[in-house]
Amino acid sequence: MCELLGMSANQPVNTGFSWRGFKQRGGCDGPHCDGFGIGFYRRDGYHDFHDVRAAIDSPLAELLGQDDIAALIMMGHLRHANEGGVEIQNTYPFTREMEGRHWCYTMQGQLEGFEALKLSGRFTPLGSTDGEHVFCWLLDQLAQQDCDDVSATCELLAQCGDQLAQMGVFNMMLSDGRVLYTYCSKKMCWLTRRAPFGTVTSLDNGEHIDLASRCDSATVYTLLATNPLTNESGWQDMHPGEAMAFCDGEQCDVITPQAMSA
Amino acid sequence: MCELLGMSANQPVNTGFSWRGFKQRGGCDGPHCDGFGIGFYRRDGYHDFHDVRAAIDSPLAELLGQDDIAALIMMGHLRHANEGGVEIQNTYPFTREMEGRHWCYTMQGQLEGFEALKLSGRFTPLGSTDGEHVFCWLLDQLAQQDCDDVSATCELLAQCGDQLAQMGVFNMMLSDGRVLYTYCSKKMCWLTRRAPFGTVTSLDNGEHIDLASRCDSATVYTLLATNPLTNESGWQDMHPGEAMAFCDGEQCDVITPQAMSA
Repeated sequence: MCELLGMSANQPVNTGFSWRGFKQRGGCDGPHCDGFGIGFYRRDGYHDFHDVRAAIDSPLAELLGQDDIAALIMMGHLRHANEGGVEIQNTYPFTREMEGRHWCYTMQGQLEGFEALKLSGRFTPLGSTDGEHVFCWLLDQLAQQDCDDVSATCELLAQCGDQLAQMGVFNMMLSDGRVLYTYCSKKMCWLTRRAPFGTVTSLDNGEHIDLASRCDSATVYTLLATNPLTNESGWQDMHPGEAMAFCDGEQCDVITPQAMSA
Repeated sequence: MCELLGMSANQPVNTGFSWRGFKQRGGCDGPHCDGFGIGFYRRDGYHDFHDVRAAIDSPLAELLGQDDIAALIMMGHLRHANEGGVEIQNTYPFTREMEGRHWCYTMQGQLEGFEALKLSGRFTPLGSTDGEHVFCWLLDQLAQQDCDDVSATCELLAQCGDQLAQMGVFNMMLSDGRVLYTYCSKKMCWLTRRAPFGTVTSLDNGEHIDLASRCDSATVYTLLATNPLTNESGWQDMHPGEAMAFCDGEQCDVITPQAMSA
Protein backbone atom coordinates (compact mmCIF):
# COMPACT_ATOMS: atom_id res chain seq x y z
CA MET A 1 0.00 0.00 0.00
CA CYS A 2 1.22 3.44 -0.87
CA GLU A 3 0.92 6.68 1.09
CA LEU A 4 -0.81 9.74 -0.31
CA LEU A 5 -0.41 13.42 0.57
CA GLY A 6 -2.52 16.29 -0.68
CA MET A 7 -3.10 19.98 -0.06
CA SER A 8 -5.48 22.65 -1.28
CA ALA A 9 -4.95 26.28 -0.26
CA ASN A 10 -6.53 29.68 -0.91
CA GLN A 11 -3.09 31.25 -1.32
CA PRO A 12 0.39 29.76 -1.76
CA VAL A 13 1.44 27.78 1.31
CA ASN A 14 4.94 26.49 1.97
CA THR A 15 4.98 22.73 1.66
CA GLY A 16 8.36 21.87 3.18
CA PHE A 17 7.17 21.05 6.71
CA SER A 18 4.50 18.61 5.52
CA TRP A 19 6.87 16.99 3.05
CA ARG A 20 9.71 16.61 5.55
CA GLY A 21 7.46 14.65 7.89
CA PHE A 22 5.59 12.70 5.22
CA LYS A 23 8.74 11.56 3.42
CA GLN A 24 9.86 9.68 6.57
CA ARG A 25 7.20 7.14 5.64
CA GLY A 26 9.13 6.44 2.45
CA GLY A 27 11.38 3.65 3.64
CA CYS A 28 11.97 4.49 7.30
CA ASP A 29 8.69 4.27 9.18
CA GLY A 30 6.94 2.36 6.41
CA PRO A 31 7.48 -0.05 3.54
CA HIS A 32 6.88 2.58 0.83
CA CYS A 33 10.40 2.51 -0.49
CA ASP A 34 9.75 1.99 -4.22
CA GLY A 35 10.12 5.59 -5.26
CA PHE A 36 8.16 8.76 -4.76
CA GLY A 37 6.76 11.71 -6.60
CA ILE A 38 5.28 15.07 -5.80
CA GLY A 39 3.51 17.66 -7.92
CA PHE A 40 2.95 21.34 -7.16
CA TYR A 41 0.38 23.66 -8.67
CA ARG A 42 1.79 27.12 -8.14
CA ARG A 43 0.36 30.45 -9.25
CA ASP A 44 2.70 30.29 -12.25
CA GLY A 45 2.07 26.72 -13.31
CA TYR A 46 2.59 23.09 -12.42
CA HIS A 47 5.77 21.08 -12.02
CA ASP A 48 6.59 17.77 -10.44
CA PHE A 49 9.45 15.58 -9.30
CA HIS A 50 9.92 11.82 -9.50
CA ASP A 51 12.53 9.44 -8.15
CA VAL A 52 12.73 5.65 -7.98
CA ARG A 53 14.79 5.80 -4.80
CA ALA A 54 13.17 5.61 -1.38
CA ALA A 55 12.27 9.11 -0.23
CA ILE A 56 14.43 8.85 2.87
CA ASP A 57 17.47 7.97 0.73
CA SER A 58 16.86 10.51 -2.01
CA PRO A 59 18.82 13.79 -2.24
CA LEU A 60 15.93 15.08 -4.35
CA ALA A 61 13.42 14.39 -1.55
CA GLU A 62 15.78 16.11 0.88
CA LEU A 63 16.04 19.16 -1.39
CA LEU A 64 12.25 19.39 -1.70
CA GLY A 65 12.05 19.52 2.09
CA GLN A 66 14.58 22.37 2.18
CA ASP A 67 13.35 24.26 -0.86
CA ASP A 68 9.91 24.67 0.71
CA ILE A 69 8.00 25.28 -2.52
CA ALA A 70 4.90 27.45 -2.02
CA ALA A 71 1.89 25.88 -3.70
CA LEU A 72 -1.85 26.21 -4.06
CA ILE A 73 -2.32 22.48 -4.57
CA MET A 74 0.16 19.72 -3.76
CA MET A 75 -0.07 15.99 -4.43
CA GLY A 76 2.59 13.62 -3.12
CA HIS A 77 2.97 9.85 -3.31
CA LEU A 78 5.24 7.28 -1.66
CA ARG A 79 5.15 4.04 -3.59
CA HIS A 80 4.94 0.46 -2.46
CA ALA A 81 5.02 -1.32 -5.81
CA ASN A 82 2.23 -3.77 -6.50
CA GLU A 83 1.36 -3.56 -10.17
CA GLY A 84 4.31 -2.49 -12.35
CA GLY A 85 8.05 -2.51 -11.66
CA VAL A 86 10.07 0.05 -9.71
CA GLU A 87 10.52 2.36 -12.67
CA ILE A 88 10.29 6.10 -13.25
CA GLN A 89 7.40 5.57 -15.65
CA ASN A 90 5.43 3.85 -12.87
CA THR A 91 6.03 6.60 -10.33
CA TYR A 92 3.14 8.88 -9.37
CA PRO A 93 1.86 11.51 -9.85
CA PHE A 94 0.71 10.86 -13.40
CA THR A 95 -0.25 13.87 -15.47
CA ARG A 96 -2.01 14.70 -18.72
CA GLU A 97 -3.10 17.90 -20.41
CA MET A 98 -6.77 18.02 -21.33
CA GLU A 99 -8.32 21.09 -22.92
CA GLY A 100 -5.57 23.37 -21.69
CA ARG A 101 -5.64 22.16 -18.10
CA HIS A 102 -2.98 20.08 -16.44
CA TRP A 103 -4.50 17.07 -14.64
CA CYS A 104 -2.55 15.31 -11.93
CA TYR A 105 -3.38 11.96 -10.33
CA THR A 106 -2.26 9.85 -7.39
CA MET A 107 -3.75 6.57 -6.17
CA GLN A 108 -3.33 4.20 -3.28
CA GLY A 109 -4.73 0.74 -3.66
CA GLN A 110 -4.79 -2.16 -6.05
CA LEU A 111 -7.41 -3.00 -8.64
CA GLU A 112 -8.02 -6.50 -10.00
CA GLY A 113 -8.95 -6.66 -13.64
CA PHE A 114 -8.19 -3.00 -14.36
CA GLU A 115 -7.17 -3.91 -17.92
CA ALA A 116 -10.85 -4.48 -18.70
CA LEU A 117 -11.52 -0.73 -18.35
CA LYS A 118 -11.70 0.24 -21.99
CA LEU A 119 -9.73 3.31 -23.06
CA SER A 120 -10.77 5.59 -25.92
CA GLY A 121 -7.20 6.01 -27.14
CA ARG A 122 -7.05 9.70 -26.40
CA PHE A 123 -5.00 8.97 -23.28
CA THR A 124 -2.66 5.97 -23.17
CA PRO A 125 -0.59 4.72 -20.24
CA LEU A 126 3.17 5.18 -20.54
CA GLY A 127 3.94 2.68 -17.78
CA SER A 128 2.37 -0.51 -16.50
CA THR A 129 0.53 0.42 -13.31
CA ASP A 130 -3.15 -0.08 -12.59
CA GLY A 131 -3.19 3.52 -11.43
CA GLU A 132 -2.12 5.08 -14.74
CA HIS A 133 -4.62 2.93 -16.63
CA VAL A 134 -7.38 4.07 -14.29
CA PHE A 135 -6.25 7.69 -14.61
CA CYS A 136 -6.53 7.51 -18.40
CA TRP A 137 -9.96 5.90 -18.04
CA LEU A 138 -11.12 8.60 -15.62
CA LEU A 139 -9.98 11.32 -18.03
CA ASP A 140 -11.96 9.61 -20.79
CA GLN A 141 -15.04 9.84 -18.56
CA LEU A 142 -14.32 13.45 -17.61
CA ALA A 143 -13.79 14.45 -21.24
CA GLN A 144 -17.46 13.75 -21.86
CA GLN A 145 -18.69 16.40 -19.45
CA ASP A 146 -18.13 19.99 -18.35
CA CYS A 147 -15.25 19.90 -15.90
CA ASP A 148 -15.96 23.50 -14.88
CA ASP A 149 -18.96 22.15 -12.99
CA VAL A 150 -17.38 21.03 -9.71
CA SER A 151 -20.50 19.29 -8.38
CA ALA A 152 -21.04 17.33 -11.57
CA THR A 153 -17.36 16.36 -11.67
CA CYS A 154 -17.41 15.25 -8.04
CA GLU A 155 -20.59 13.24 -8.68
CA LEU A 156 -19.04 11.56 -11.70
CA LEU A 157 -15.88 10.73 -9.76
CA ALA A 158 -18.00 9.27 -6.96
CA GLN A 159 -19.79 7.02 -9.45
CA CYS A 160 -16.51 5.96 -11.06
CA GLY A 161 -15.00 5.42 -7.63
CA ASP A 162 -17.87 3.17 -6.60
CA GLN A 163 -17.31 1.11 -9.73
CA LEU A 164 -13.53 0.91 -9.19
CA ALA A 165 -13.89 0.11 -5.49
CA GLN A 166 -15.58 -3.13 -6.53
CA MET A 167 -12.26 -4.12 -8.11
CA GLY A 168 -10.21 -3.62 -4.93
CA VAL A 169 -8.88 -0.78 -2.84
CA PHE A 170 -9.22 2.64 -4.48
CA ASN A 171 -8.15 5.78 -2.67
CA MET A 172 -7.23 8.61 -5.00
CA MET A 173 -6.60 12.29 -5.49
CA LEU A 174 -7.11 14.13 -8.75
CA SER A 175 -6.72 17.79 -9.63
CA ASP A 176 -7.05 20.07 -12.61
CA GLY A 177 -5.14 22.83 -10.82
CA ARG A 178 -8.25 24.53 -9.49
CA VAL A 179 -10.01 21.81 -7.51
CA LEU A 180 -8.57 18.86 -5.57
CA TYR A 181 -10.90 15.87 -5.82
CA THR A 182 -10.58 12.78 -3.70
CA TYR A 183 -12.30 9.43 -3.39
CA CYS A 184 -11.90 7.05 -0.45
CA SER A 185 -12.72 3.36 -0.65
CA LYS A 186 -10.83 2.49 2.51
CA LYS A 187 -8.48 5.05 4.07
CA MET A 188 -8.03 8.80 3.78
CA CYS A 189 -8.13 11.65 6.28
CA TRP A 190 -8.18 15.41 6.08
CA LEU A 191 -7.74 18.52 8.18
CA THR A 192 -8.51 22.17 7.47
CA ARG A 193 -6.27 24.83 8.99
CA ARG A 194 -7.28 28.46 9.43
CA ALA A 195 -6.59 31.31 11.87
CA PRO A 196 -5.88 31.35 14.71
CA PHE A 197 -2.87 29.20 13.86
CA GLY A 198 -0.89 27.41 16.56
CA THR A 199 2.19 25.26 16.86
CA VAL A 200 1.90 21.73 15.50
CA THR A 201 4.12 18.67 15.66
CA SER A 202 4.79 16.14 12.93
CA LEU A 203 3.85 12.59 13.91
CA ASP A 204 6.58 11.28 11.59
CA ASN A 205 9.72 13.18 12.56
CA GLY A 206 8.71 15.14 15.66
CA GLU A 207 9.41 18.50 14.03
CA HIS A 208 7.48 21.44 15.50
CA ILE A 209 6.33 24.42 13.52
CA ASP A 210 4.69 27.68 14.50
CA LEU A 211 2.09 28.11 11.79
CA ALA A 212 1.21 31.64 12.95
CA SER A 213 4.67 32.83 11.96
CA ARG A 214 4.23 31.43 8.45
CA CYS A 215 0.58 31.96 7.52
CA ASP A 216 -1.26 35.24 7.45
CA SER A 217 -4.68 35.34 9.04
CA ALA A 218 -6.53 35.05 5.72
CA THR A 219 -4.87 31.75 4.82
CA VAL A 220 -7.11 28.68 4.74
CA TYR A 221 -5.82 25.30 3.62
CA THR A 222 -6.68 21.65 3.84
CA LEU A 223 -4.25 18.75 4.11
CA LEU A 224 -5.18 15.24 3.07
CA ALA A 225 -3.22 12.07 3.73
CA THR A 226 -3.52 8.33 4.05
CA ASN A 227 -2.68 8.76 7.74
CA PRO A 228 -2.66 11.95 9.88
CA LEU A 229 0.49 14.03 9.54
CA THR A 230 0.41 15.93 12.82
CA ASN A 231 -0.77 15.89 16.41
CA GLU A 232 -3.71 18.21 15.65
CA SER A 233 -7.12 17.05 16.84
CA GLY A 234 -8.93 18.17 13.69
CA TRP A 235 -8.01 15.22 11.48
CA GLN A 236 -11.17 13.58 10.16
CA ASP A 237 -11.44 10.20 8.49
CA MET A 238 -13.24 10.02 5.19
CA HIS A 239 -15.90 7.32 5.00
CA PRO A 240 -15.57 4.44 2.57
CA GLY A 241 -17.37 5.41 -0.63
CA GLU A 242 -17.09 9.13 0.00
CA ALA A 243 -15.93 11.62 -2.62
CA MET A 244 -14.93 15.19 -1.81
CA ALA A 245 -13.87 18.32 -3.64
CA PHE A 246 -11.65 21.04 -2.16
CA CYS A 247 -11.57 24.52 -3.65
CA ASP A 248 -9.40 27.38 -2.36
CA GLY A 249 -8.40 25.41 0.70
CA GLU A 250 -11.85 24.32 1.87
CA GLN A 251 -14.24 21.49 1.25
CA CYS A 252 -16.63 22.66 -1.45
CA ASP A 253 -18.47 19.44 -2.19
CA VAL A 254 -18.99 16.01 -0.68
CA ILE A 255 -20.80 12.99 -2.05
CA THR A 256 -21.88 10.62 0.69
CA PRO A 257 -22.46 6.96 -0.18
CA GLN A 258 -26.12 6.13 -0.71
CA ALA A 259 -26.08 3.57 2.07
CA MET A 260 -25.04 6.25 4.57
CA SER A 261 -27.28 9.03 3.31
CA ALA A 262 -30.33 6.78 3.08
CA MET B 1 17.98 33.77 -27.03
CA CYS B 2 17.94 30.57 -25.07
CA GLU B 3 20.51 27.80 -24.94
CA LEU B 4 19.70 24.21 -25.88
CA LEU B 5 21.38 20.97 -24.85
CA GLY B 6 20.65 17.51 -26.22
CA MET B 7 22.00 13.99 -26.11
CA SER B 8 21.24 10.68 -27.79
CA ALA B 9 23.06 7.51 -26.66
CA ASN B 10 23.05 3.80 -27.45
CA GLN B 11 23.21 2.95 -23.75
CA PRO B 12 22.68 5.04 -20.61
CA VAL B 13 25.31 7.77 -20.30
CA ASN B 14 25.89 9.89 -17.22
CA THR B 15 24.77 13.43 -17.87
CA GLY B 16 26.31 15.27 -14.92
CA PHE B 17 29.48 16.52 -16.62
CA SER B 18 27.63 18.03 -19.58
CA TRP B 19 25.02 19.60 -17.32
CA ARG B 20 27.55 21.07 -14.89
CA GLY B 21 29.26 22.91 -17.73
CA PHE B 22 26.13 23.85 -19.63
CA LYS B 23 24.31 25.27 -16.61
CA GLN B 24 27.03 27.92 -16.22
CA ARG B 25 25.42 29.61 -19.20
CA GLY B 26 22.29 30.06 -17.11
CA GLY B 27 22.99 33.45 -15.61
CA CYS B 28 26.78 33.50 -15.26
CA ASP B 29 28.34 33.36 -18.70
CA GLY B 30 25.13 34.26 -20.50
CA PRO B 31 21.85 36.12 -20.14
CA HIS B 32 19.75 32.95 -19.91
CA CYS B 33 18.65 33.50 -16.35
CA ASP B 34 14.88 33.13 -16.69
CA GLY B 35 14.66 29.56 -15.51
CA PHE B 36 15.70 26.21 -16.86
CA GLY B 37 14.47 22.72 -17.43
CA ILE B 38 15.88 19.35 -18.30
CA GLY B 39 14.25 16.07 -19.29
CA PHE B 40 15.75 12.58 -19.20
CA TYR B 41 14.61 9.52 -21.07
CA ARG B 42 15.97 6.59 -19.07
CA ARG B 43 15.52 2.90 -19.68
CA ASP B 44 12.70 2.96 -17.12
CA GLY B 45 10.85 6.03 -18.32
CA TYR B 46 10.98 9.79 -18.64
CA HIS B 47 11.13 12.47 -15.97
CA ASP B 48 12.01 16.12 -16.00
CA PHE B 49 12.83 19.06 -13.76
CA HIS B 50 11.87 22.72 -14.03
CA ASP B 51 12.82 25.81 -12.09
CA VAL B 52 12.19 29.52 -12.66
CA ARG B 53 15.45 30.44 -10.97
CA ALA B 54 18.63 30.96 -12.96
CA ALA B 55 20.45 27.64 -13.26
CA ILE B 56 23.55 28.97 -11.53
CA ASP B 57 21.48 30.05 -8.51
CA SER B 58 19.32 26.94 -8.31
CA PRO B 59 19.93 24.18 -5.74
CA LEU B 60 17.97 21.91 -8.08
CA ALA B 61 20.37 22.58 -10.96
CA GLU B 62 23.27 21.94 -8.58
CA LEU B 63 21.74 18.63 -7.49
CA LEU B 64 21.24 17.52 -11.10
CA GLY B 65 24.94 18.10 -11.67
CA GLN B 66 25.81 15.95 -8.66
CA ASP B 67 23.18 13.27 -9.16
CA ASP B 68 24.59 12.45 -12.60
CA ILE B 69 21.45 10.81 -14.00
CA ALA B 70 22.21 8.16 -16.64
CA ALA B 71 20.04 8.69 -19.70
CA LEU B 72 19.51 7.50 -23.26
CA ILE B 73 18.18 10.86 -24.37
CA MET B 74 18.53 14.20 -22.59
CA MET B 75 17.07 17.59 -23.48
CA GLY B 76 18.01 20.69 -21.50
CA HIS B 77 17.02 24.34 -21.84
CA LEU B 78 18.21 27.60 -20.32
CA ARG B 79 15.64 30.30 -20.84
CA HIS B 80 15.95 33.91 -21.86
CA ALA B 81 12.31 34.97 -21.78
CA ASN B 82 10.94 36.57 -24.92
CA GLU B 83 7.35 35.45 -25.34
CA GLY B 84 5.65 34.62 -22.02
CA GLY B 85 6.54 35.59 -18.45
CA VAL B 86 9.13 33.98 -16.18
CA GLU B 87 6.76 31.28 -14.97
CA ILE B 88 7.00 27.54 -14.40
CA GLN B 89 4.35 26.95 -17.06
CA ASN B 90 6.56 28.71 -19.61
CA THR B 91 9.68 26.71 -18.76
CA TYR B 92 10.92 24.10 -21.24
CA PRO B 93 10.93 21.21 -21.89
CA PHE B 94 7.26 20.88 -22.77
CA THR B 95 5.83 17.39 -22.90
CA ARG B 96 2.73 15.57 -24.09
CA GLU B 97 1.71 11.94 -24.33
CA MET B 98 0.62 10.85 -27.80
CA GLU B 99 -0.36 7.26 -28.55
CA GLY B 100 1.49 5.91 -25.54
CA ARG B 101 4.73 7.76 -26.23
CA HIS B 102 6.07 10.66 -24.23
CA TRP B 103 7.07 13.58 -26.49
CA CYS B 104 9.45 16.22 -25.22
CA TYR B 105 10.24 19.57 -26.85
CA THR B 106 12.72 22.42 -26.50
CA MET B 107 13.11 25.46 -28.72
CA GLN B 108 15.43 28.39 -29.10
CA GLY B 109 14.21 31.31 -31.12
CA GLN B 110 11.27 33.62 -31.49
CA LEU B 111 8.40 33.33 -33.94
CA GLU B 112 6.28 36.28 -35.07
CA GLY B 113 2.63 35.51 -35.61
CA PHE B 114 2.75 32.02 -34.09
CA GLU B 115 -0.83 32.41 -32.88
CA ALA B 116 -1.95 32.00 -36.49
CA LEU B 117 -0.83 28.34 -36.44
CA LYS B 118 -4.19 26.65 -36.04
CA LEU B 119 -4.44 23.93 -33.39
CA SER B 120 -6.79 20.97 -33.66
CA GLY B 121 -7.67 21.09 -29.95
CA ARG B 122 -6.14 17.73 -29.18
CA PHE B 123 -3.14 19.50 -27.64
CA THR B 124 -3.54 22.89 -25.97
CA PRO B 125 -0.81 25.11 -24.52
CA LEU B 126 -0.76 25.43 -20.73
CA GLY B 127 1.43 28.54 -20.77
CA SER B 128 1.88 31.51 -23.08
CA THR B 129 5.09 30.86 -25.01
CA ASP B 130 5.45 30.68 -28.78
CA GLY B 131 7.35 27.44 -28.24
CA GLU B 132 4.54 25.54 -26.54
CA HIS B 133 2.07 26.67 -29.17
CA VAL B 134 4.42 25.46 -31.90
CA PHE B 135 4.97 22.17 -30.05
CA CYS B 136 1.20 21.53 -29.95
CA TRP B 137 0.99 22.40 -33.65
CA LEU B 138 3.87 20.06 -34.51
CA LEU B 139 2.17 17.22 -32.60
CA ASP B 140 -1.01 17.88 -34.57
CA GLN B 141 1.01 17.44 -37.78
CA LEU B 142 2.77 14.32 -36.46
CA ALA B 143 -0.52 12.76 -35.35
CA GLN B 144 -1.51 12.54 -39.01
CA GLN B 145 1.33 10.21 -39.95
CA ASP B 146 3.23 7.11 -38.81
CA CYS B 147 5.77 8.30 -36.26
CA ASP B 148 7.51 4.91 -36.36
CA ASP B 149 8.87 5.93 -39.76
CA VAL B 150 11.91 8.00 -38.79
CA SER B 151 12.64 9.24 -42.32
CA ALA B 152 9.08 10.38 -42.90
CA THR B 153 9.01 12.08 -39.49
CA CYS B 154 12.31 13.86 -40.15
CA GLU B 155 11.04 14.95 -43.56
CA LEU B 156 7.82 16.30 -42.06
CA LEU B 157 9.73 18.17 -39.36
CA ALA B 158 12.02 19.66 -42.02
CA GLN B 159 8.99 20.92 -43.93
CA CYS B 160 7.39 22.32 -40.77
CA GLY B 161 10.73 23.85 -39.78
CA ASP B 162 11.06 25.60 -43.13
CA GLN B 163 7.59 27.05 -42.64
CA LEU B 164 8.33 28.17 -39.07
CA ALA B 165 11.74 29.60 -39.98
CA GLN B 166 9.92 32.11 -42.15
CA MET B 167 8.37 33.48 -38.95
CA GLY B 168 11.70 34.06 -37.19
CA VAL B 169 14.45 32.03 -35.55
CA PHE B 170 13.55 28.38 -35.02
CA ASN B 171 16.06 25.96 -33.56
CA MET B 172 14.47 23.00 -31.86
CA MET B 173 14.82 19.51 -30.47
CA LEU B 174 12.00 17.00 -30.25
CA SER B 175 11.97 13.41 -29.05
CA ASP B 176 9.55 10.55 -28.61
CA GLY B 177 11.98 8.68 -26.40
CA ARG B 178 13.49 6.65 -29.23
CA VAL B 179 14.70 9.27 -31.69
CA LEU B 180 16.03 12.79 -31.08
CA TYR B 181 15.00 15.10 -33.90
CA THR B 182 16.43 18.55 -34.43
CA TYR B 183 15.89 21.44 -36.82
CA CYS B 184 18.26 24.38 -37.19
CA SER B 185 17.22 27.68 -38.71
CA LYS B 186 20.24 29.55 -37.37
CA LYS B 187 22.46 27.92 -34.75
CA MET B 188 23.02 24.37 -33.54
CA CYS B 189 26.05 22.12 -33.34
CA TRP B 190 26.69 18.48 -32.62
CA LEU B 191 29.42 16.01 -31.79
CA THR B 192 29.46 12.22 -31.76
CA ARG B 193 31.66 10.45 -29.22
CA ARG B 194 32.81 6.84 -29.54
CA ALA B 195 35.85 4.76 -28.55
CA PRO B 196 38.69 5.42 -28.18
CA PHE B 197 37.57 7.97 -25.57
CA GLY B 198 39.94 10.64 -24.29
CA THR B 199 39.97 13.43 -21.74
CA VAL B 200 37.84 16.46 -22.56
CA THR B 201 37.48 19.89 -21.02
CA SER B 202 34.31 21.93 -20.56
CA LEU B 203 34.45 25.30 -22.29
CA ASP B 204 32.09 26.70 -19.65
CA ASN B 205 33.64 25.74 -16.31
CA GLY B 206 37.04 24.26 -17.25
CA GLU B 207 36.20 20.88 -15.72
CA HIS B 208 38.16 17.95 -17.19
CA ILE B 209 36.79 14.46 -17.51
CA ASP B 210 38.35 11.18 -18.58
CA LEU B 211 35.62 9.68 -20.73
CA ALA B 212 37.45 6.34 -21.04
CA SER B 213 36.99 5.76 -17.32
CA ARG B 214 33.24 6.31 -17.63
CA CYS B 215 32.20 4.82 -21.00
CA ASP B 216 32.73 1.27 -22.13
CA SER B 217 34.09 0.75 -25.63
CA ALA B 218 30.66 -0.02 -27.11
CA THR B 219 29.19 3.31 -26.06
CA VAL B 220 28.29 5.75 -28.82
CA TYR B 221 26.57 9.04 -28.12
CA THR B 222 25.93 12.39 -29.69
CA LEU B 223 25.73 15.73 -27.92
CA LEU B 224 23.89 18.70 -29.41
CA ALA B 225 23.98 22.28 -28.19
CA THR B 226 23.46 25.84 -29.26
CA ASN B 227 27.20 26.35 -28.74
CA PRO B 228 29.98 23.73 -28.34
CA LEU B 229 30.30 22.35 -24.81
CA THR B 230 33.90 21.16 -24.86
CA ASN B 231 37.32 21.66 -26.41
CA GLU B 232 36.89 18.67 -28.74
CA SER B 233 37.59 19.27 -32.42
CA GLY B 234 34.65 17.19 -33.63
CA TRP B 235 31.91 19.77 -33.07
CA GLN B 236 30.06 20.40 -36.33
CA ASP B 237 27.70 23.23 -37.09
CA MET B 238 24.33 22.38 -38.54
CA HIS B 239 23.39 24.34 -41.62
CA PRO B 240 20.41 26.67 -41.62
CA GLY B 241 17.41 24.74 -42.85
CA GLU B 242 18.84 21.35 -41.90
CA ALA B 243 16.88 18.70 -39.99
CA MET B 244 18.51 15.67 -38.40
CA ALA B 245 17.47 12.54 -36.55
CA PHE B 246 19.64 10.72 -34.02
CA CYS B 247 18.95 7.09 -33.09
CA ASP B 248 20.96 5.09 -30.56
CA GLY B 249 23.58 7.79 -30.30
CA GLU B 250 24.26 8.33 -33.99
CA GLN B 251 22.90 10.40 -36.81
CA CYS B 252 20.38 8.22 -38.63
CA ASP B 253 18.85 10.77 -40.98
CA VAL B 254 19.54 14.23 -42.32
CA ILE B 255 17.43 16.47 -44.53
CA THR B 256 19.52 19.03 -46.34
CA PRO B 257 17.85 22.23 -47.54
CA GLN B 258 16.93 22.12 -51.23
CA ALA B 259 19.07 25.11 -52.03
CA MET B 260 22.15 23.29 -50.72
CA SER B 261 21.40 19.87 -52.19
CA ALA B 262 20.50 21.30 -55.60
